[in-house]
Amino acid sequence: MKLGRILRESLEGAVPRLVLAQPELDRVIDLATAEYQRLLGTGASADAARRLASALYPASMSAAIAAGPTLLAAAAHTAESVQEGSALLPFEQVQWLAPLDPPVMRDCLAFEQHLLNSFKGPSVPPQALAQHYVMPLYYKGNPLTLTGHEQEVPWPDYTQKMDYELELGFVIGRSGKDLTPENALSHLFGVTIFNDFSARDIQLQEMQGLLGPAKGKDFRTALGPWITTVDELDVHNLTMVARVNGQEWSRGSSSTMMWQVEEIIAYISKAEGIEVGELIGSGTVGWGCGLELGKLLKPGDVVELEVEGIGVLRNRLGTPAPAGWMPQHRSISASV
Amino acid sequence: MKLGRILRESLEGAVPRLVLAQPELDRVIDLATAEYQRLLGTGASADAARRLASALYPASMSAAIAAGPTLLAAAAHTAESVQEGSALLPFEQVQWLAPLDPPVMRDCLAFEQHLLNSFKGPSVPPQALAQHYVMPLYYKGNPLTLTGHEQEVPWPDYTQKMDYELELGFVIGRSGKDLTPENALSHLFGVTIFNDFSARDIQLQEMQGLLGPAKGKDFRTALGPWITTVDELDVHNLTMVARVNGQEWSRGSSSTMMWQVEEIIAYISKAEGIEVGELIGSGTVGWGCGLELGKLLKPGDVVELEVEGIGVLRNRLGTPAPAGWMPQHRSISASV
Repeated sequence: MKLGRILRESLEGAVPRLVLAQPELDRVIDLATAEYQRLLGTGASADAARRLASALYPASMSAAIAAGPTLLAAAAHTAESVQEGSALLPFEQVQWLAPLDPPVMRDCLAFEQHLLNSFKGPSVPPQALAQHYVMPLYYKGNPLTLTGHEQEVPWPDYTQKMDYELELGFVIGRSGKDLTPENALSHLFGVTIFNDFSARDIQLQEMQGLLGPAKGKDFRTALGPWITTVDELDVHNLTMVARVNGQEWSRGSSSTMMWQVEEIIAYISKAEGIEVGELIGSGTVGWGCGLELGKLLKPGDVVELEVEGIGVLRNRLGTPAPAGWMPQHRSISASV
Repeated sequence: MKLGRILRESLEGAVPRLVLAQPELDRVIDLATAEYQRLLGTGASADAARRLASALYPASMSAAIAAGPTLLAAAAHTAESVQEGSALLPFEQVQWLAPLDPPVMRDCLAFEQHLLNSFKGPSVPPQALAQHYVMPLYYKGNPLTLTGHEQEVPWPDYTQKMDYELELGFVIGRSGKDLTPENALSHLFGVTIFNDFSARDIQLQEMQGLLGPAKGKDFRTALGPWITTVDELDVHNLTMVARVNGQEWSRGSSSTMMWQVEEIIAYISKAEGIEVGELIGSGTVGWGCGLELGKLLKPGDVVELEVEGIGVLRNRLGTPAPAGWMPQHRSISASV
């Protein structure tokens, strides 16, 4: 099943709606609308139909997934009964949102080839590489700046070095704590495509300061177009491709991950636990970004990431923002 | 005004409730209960009183703050009318939660003395210190593992080096983007106390790997006991004290921040924007953790952080968890 989120106009402005995507028919089903219509057909009152439909299919995907097996069973039932009308939208009428609104969002560095390509040169301390062979390290992103398929990515005033990153986004379906690789996979709900747009100049400064990265990543992260549930995927063997302005730049596979997704989930769940609706980026596949290829993106470039069994996530870069306020450098104080 | 969150039993299990804390009376006011009772007194029906009270005072503090000036005006009105009964709880009957459920949580390193004390020795690359004088760097925490006053902090199996960190927690009251230090302070709602408990051994490994830190911090972060609104505080001059088992270990002041809170808010808001309900840790005040003092915490230690105008945040450490699964080290692959 392929589940996403779109924005639709309502009496109270634009609202997020959960959809079931049917790429083979170039359309989505607005699940709450379809369920409302299905319930009306069974004799429910309009009030009751609205109440039940919005409880099953809230605006939040992580809240919907938190219902457990009920969500997928209900979505299949709702989709079966769908009829022509306001519940069906052709792709060309859809304004995509990020398919997930995670309560927390991590991004790993699980592909060895990307690590070896990126962690070299005089600006990387010698011990940095070795740590990544000890455990699956990660940083945390800003879930509030996730954006969807076909949305423009703004170009911050503080960067001249814009890059994409070709990654998988793993979506947690069930909470857990102190998991092991043996039981961790049962906590995986689905996979989406994760374009970790990166401002390389400021990212390097942040990593040299040993915190983050943050501003080098958080201006916008693209996710989508939807989440494909795990039953439709061989998560350990997915072909991954990136195209810039229609030209292939990157090609790889999830089979080359040094840290497996089940190891990553188990590791994250240690002591702190992992919650339903969380998002975990795989890290960039080997040769999956411009940094590894000696290339940079330009304003207006269109980046398409394609992953087998999921689809294509396409985003255009905006034009550089006018220069705004920046912090004034400090000098080391004599008084401390 | 001092606003917090507690856990209370209901017909559907324990639920978070917003409270107004009155430390001078050793009690809290359950705002939704008090407002329900006030509305009944004005002739509202029980259903309407419940509906209005829970809309004003939802379980989520960040959702409540998002109402804007309405929240504080309503809370003052509700508190004025409070009578003896189920809306009033003495401190000794209260189970505290973290006062905030932020959508994203950052932690800075804004005190120069802590920076100079911590970023030294052979494990810190020479360029690391200098970056912190260029901009206010930060990492992101896990908002799902925030805990409240008097709650026990678990000791993960992966650490032998447990530490506290004496910090302020800044709470954002209003969304904004591309702010400047001149207008950023008007986006600050209040301040709370932030104990960034740290597993120093794994934190060092993570920072050497140039991502995070993550597991070194996210097992639990203590916050509270409540948020004091900015009108009651001189945020640039707050005395900060830490005691371990009743003995003073640390003393400092927010007046020694190298990066001011208004600069930090403005910087974060660049390109990505800052959202209502976000939490920003100040970073540790100089000499505000065991690392700087050559000391470590032991299982069962009680850490109290006190900040002028706010109160005391007290947490006891648990006993070390039994050893669980850990990732197996990898070796550098010959095939990539």
